[in-house]
Amino acid sequence: MADRGKRLIAFALYPGVTPLDVVGPLTVLRDLRIGTPYRTVVVAERLEALPTDTNLHVTPARTFAEVQAPFAVFVPGGGTNTIEAMADRALVTYVRRAAASATIAGSTGNGALVLAAAGLLDGRRAAIHWAYANLLRERGAVPVADRWVDDGRFLTAAGGTAGIDAMLQLTARLRSVSAARLAQLWMEYDPQPPFGRPEAIEASGELGAHLRARPALSASREGLDDVTH
Amino acid sequence: MADRGKRLIAFALYPGVTPLDVVGPLTVLRDLRIGTPYRTVVVAERLEALPTDTNLHVTPARTFAEVQAPFAVFVPGGGTNTIEAMADRALVTYVRRAAASATIAGSTGNGALVLAAAGLLDGRRAAIHWAYANLLRERGAVPVADRWVDDGRFLTAAGGTAGIDAMLQLTARLRSVSAARLAQLWMEYDPQPPFGRPEAIEASGELGAHLRARPALSASREGLDDVTH
Repeated sequence: MADRGKRLIAFALYPGVTPLDVVGPLTVLRDLRIGTPYRTVVVAERLEALPTDTNLHVTPARTFAEVQAPFAVFVPGGGTNTIEAMADRALVTYVRRAAASATIAGSTGNGALVLAAAGLLDGRRAAIHWAYANLLRERGAVPVADRWVDDGRFLTAAGGTAGIDAMLQLTARLRSVSAARLAQLWMEYDPQPPFGRPEAIEASGELGAHLRARPALSASREGLDDVTH
Repeated sequence: MADRGKRLIAFALYPGVTPLDVVGPLTVLRDLRIGTPYRTVVVAERLEALPTDTNLHVTPARTFAEVQAPFAVFVPGGGTNTIEAMADRALVTYVRRAAASATIAGSTGNGALVLAAAGLLDGRRAAIHWAYANLLRERGAVPVADRWVDDGRFLTAAGGTAGIDAMLQLTARLRSVSAARLAQLWMEYDPQPPFGRPEAIEASGELGAHLRARPALSASREGLDDVTH
């Protein structure tokens, strides 16, 4: 990849990352390489395979040191591994510095926790995986139960497939709505969840009882319910 | 990972694979590790980092030789790289042999082309990424324009996020509908594509013209339109 003259959209990895939070966005943004200066690049402290929270290791294409001034920097989620990432000095320092010169900074999953650890979200509205909303609030941000929040400077997404929605929004912003639609068609983003939508799920008695039996989950749901939007 | 006593659900990688076709399924099936004998495992010919069709390398956890008799074997897609994979003797041989003893064989994206190359889909109905339907038909299978096809023995999915839908179906089959719903809730699979659904997209004049200008695409669409289902 020739970086010169390109506007790099960097995804910063750390051990235990949730690969869907990286791969969903990369897939949406893939088509930007045709006819635009934007290129995605996956970065980490070192060029080594990193464990994820699935049975797959992932390897970045560049080190933090090699991509110091990206056009945009995103931090994916990683479940409970992200809590450790908040204390990862190399990662947090990279994100703080890259965000300072970047046009856009953002996150998917619970990656907003790393943005908050870098001091970037004080008082800002941000989307995050629903199970981590309370923790984000404790770090000074204002968690919002939307699929994504785009305030121009920060583009934060909720968990899992919400990163896909947010990157379709970014594609429209950087290029065009028709480019976003084409990306969506290529990746067959026409979901037909066989068992309904999560709202319906939450309302169901069986799963509701299951979730209420898990303290961390129910506490987080209550945290989200406090948010007005 | 201790393989002994487990029922392994293997995803067979090759160079240039589409990571979403692997990572979407792995994310859905993640929760099976709690309270079931099922475990996902990512396999390839060698334990080396493989390029993907994004700016990320992925590394398998086991070699083909180490997982010779999985409970299920799936082949992800890889765009045009899958055409080369159809001639990858180590991959095709592995898939043929593993499928022979497996309870379930399947694919995501255009991975059905590799199943067909292994002689597994003759006369069978199978889902595939829409752009590759004609090629699958030429290989003796019957491409179907559904999100997934589950005939009990073969579970084939279409492209991109269709692999998520198919694995929710598999989770319900192996465990329960409520387990599938919980996986869906964790990964926030409640898509809200900001620019509508692909059906609406196809109808739009602007993008329709764009697609018609790309022969490979329009030809494949026509191929799909021939399918009655």
